[in-house]
Amino acid sequence: GTGGAGFIGSHLCDRLAERGHAIVAADNLMLGRREHIQPLENRPDFTFVEMDVSDVAALDALAEQHRFDSVFHLAANSDIGRSHSDPGIDLTHTFATTYSVLEAMRRHAIKELVFASTSAVYGEAKGALREDHGPLLPISHYGAGKLASEAFISSYGENYGIRSWIARFPNVVGERSTHGALFDWGRKLARNPDRLEVLGDGTQIKPYLHVSDLVSAILLAWDTMDERVNVFNVGGPTRASVRRMAEIFIEEAGGTATIDYTGGDRGWVGDVPSVEYDTTKIRSIGWEPKYDSEQAVRAAARWIIENPS
Amino acid sequence: GTGGAGFIGSHLCDRLAERGHAIVAADNLMLGRREHIQPLENRPDFTFVEMDVSDVAALDALAEQHRFDSVFHLAANSDIGRSHSDPGIDLTHTFATTYSVLEAMRRHAIKELVFASTSAVYGEAKGALREDHGPLLPISHYGAGKLASEAFISSYGENYGIRSWIARFPNVVGERSTHGALFDWGRKLARNPDRLEVLGDGTQIKPYLHVSDLVSAILLAWDTMDERVNVFNVGGPTRASVRRMAEIFIEEAGGTATIDYTGGDRGWVGDVPSVEYDTTKIRSIGWEPKYDSEQAVRAAARWIIENPS
Repeated sequence: GTGGAGFIGSHLCDRLAERGHAIVAADNLMLGRREHIQPLENRPDFTFVEMDVSDVAALDALAEQHRFDSVFHLAANSDIGRSHSDPGIDLTHTFATTYSVLEAMRRHAIKELVFASTSAVYGEAKGALREDHGPLLPISHYGAGKLASEAFISSYGENYGIRSWIARFPNVVGERSTHGALFDWGRKLARNPDRLEVLGDGTQIKPYLHVSDLVSAILLAWDTMDERVNVFNVGGPTRASVRRMAEIFIEEAGGTATIDYTGGDRGWVGDVPSVEYDTTKIRSIGWEPKYDSEQAVRAAARWIIENPS
Repeated sequence: GTGGAGFIGSHLCDRLAERGHAIVAADNLMLGRREHIQPLENRPDFTFVEMDVSDVAALDALAEQHRFDSVFHLAANSDIGRSHSDPGIDLTHTFATTYSVLEAMRRHAIKELVFASTSAVYGEAKGALREDHGPLLPISHYGAGKLASEAFISSYGENYGIRSWIARFPNVVGERSTHGALFDWGRKLARNPDRLEVLGDGTQIKPYLHVSDLVSAILLAWDTMDERVNVFNVGGPTRASVRRMAEIFIEEAGGTATIDYTGGDRGWVGDVPSVEYDTTKIRSIGWEPKYDSEQAVRAAARWIIENPS
């Protein structure tokens, strides 16, 4: 797996280890943290490798050293706002990492790829988004890098017999998050417990998915879906506004901070202010999330407050 | 324009010159030919530059030297079959060229991009393909490189205010073609006038578009469509089988060659054996092709036979 020490990656490692799989987790530790996977490092069938997944030679060496049956590719830039001034971030960390992984898979005949995509591939499309929505017009470089990744995953699949599972998801929250609005709020409130600056006007409304529900969906899809390329949406069952999230965050912090909205209908260029999400496909094979959006946000807020960065 | 000495690019240059536009045509002459644009080179407002469009520095220098209002980006690998054994061809020539163009546009504040995409973004999807079809699962690296290009065109559009027109088209034929089945047949028949080897079993059936009809569609869309990102299909109004194409080709060659089919439902990995195409959107703004598929193939065959390569 790539991004194995990251927020989602480390939870995935936990679950794969529980299921008895031997795991090699690669991560450049830009966002990932070694402590997330520390409990796994005592296991004989778990290996951590610090490396940049866009480094083709390093990836090649890794694939020569181990015999991989499947790759879980989660490594990416996950700071959507940051690449407005430097689009090369998503070219390198979101797209080129995927291309390197695919090249290593081609050269070493690895036949299964599970890929963390994003609802950002849909851009600002209106309505409850389904997997068959088109055209796909991402408004962030992050979404573009993920869509470009999906494109080559599909062509590599046909050309070299690689089966793939592509999970498209919006905001994921929970224990061990390494970025995102809640994470930023934790830092802000630590600096000034009286005021919380929130990007946008608070009306942005999106489904929030707890990381454990995401991992369940990914593993269920991997176990169950058997097309050459399996694209599926996964997202929280309800939505929460940024205003409501900020209130929950302040409640969990036990504080009385006032909220300062920076204004505007979105937090940053590339932010999609209102996301509605159709998860019929993954539900049809039996996935049922345990957390609604507010519960997921509350669990994440609690962890962030208890684990200041 | 990029790919300016190529098959489609040179026809586009002719029409833009007729309309009085000043043109800088860039081409690495891998597939393009200087002779295609030779008549234009006498014009004071036409400049040809031999360069590789994936060379960011060279593109930057060009954008500094000229003040571009619009970019027509056609440069790409156009040999779909070739990249099965070397996917890097489409990574570099089909995708990286687009990324370089977008970076030059961002840095030099160029605000309009017309892009030659492809029906290959739809992969093997069934039925009459519309622009809103999804998910997009290309089966060739060429289709993947074009879809990856579309993705970043969309995100650059949002981030830096670039308006774009994305033409998705299947097989284009006509005078000055530099590749493709008809082109290959010309070479084969020159070597052996008695037998024509045809890839696949001849049943592949696709719409063929004459290059002049394509250029008309592109210019009409550029004049008329005004979304941030304008995606449109364009394709021949009828379809022709590979068998019928081969017959027409042999008729035009005045020969009596027998056809040897290599067999199989497709010509190469990544070939889509049956393409049906919905062009309602471009027709709704008044585009009407002048050639049907057989007429387009016949015109192309005649030119290829009269201009042996």
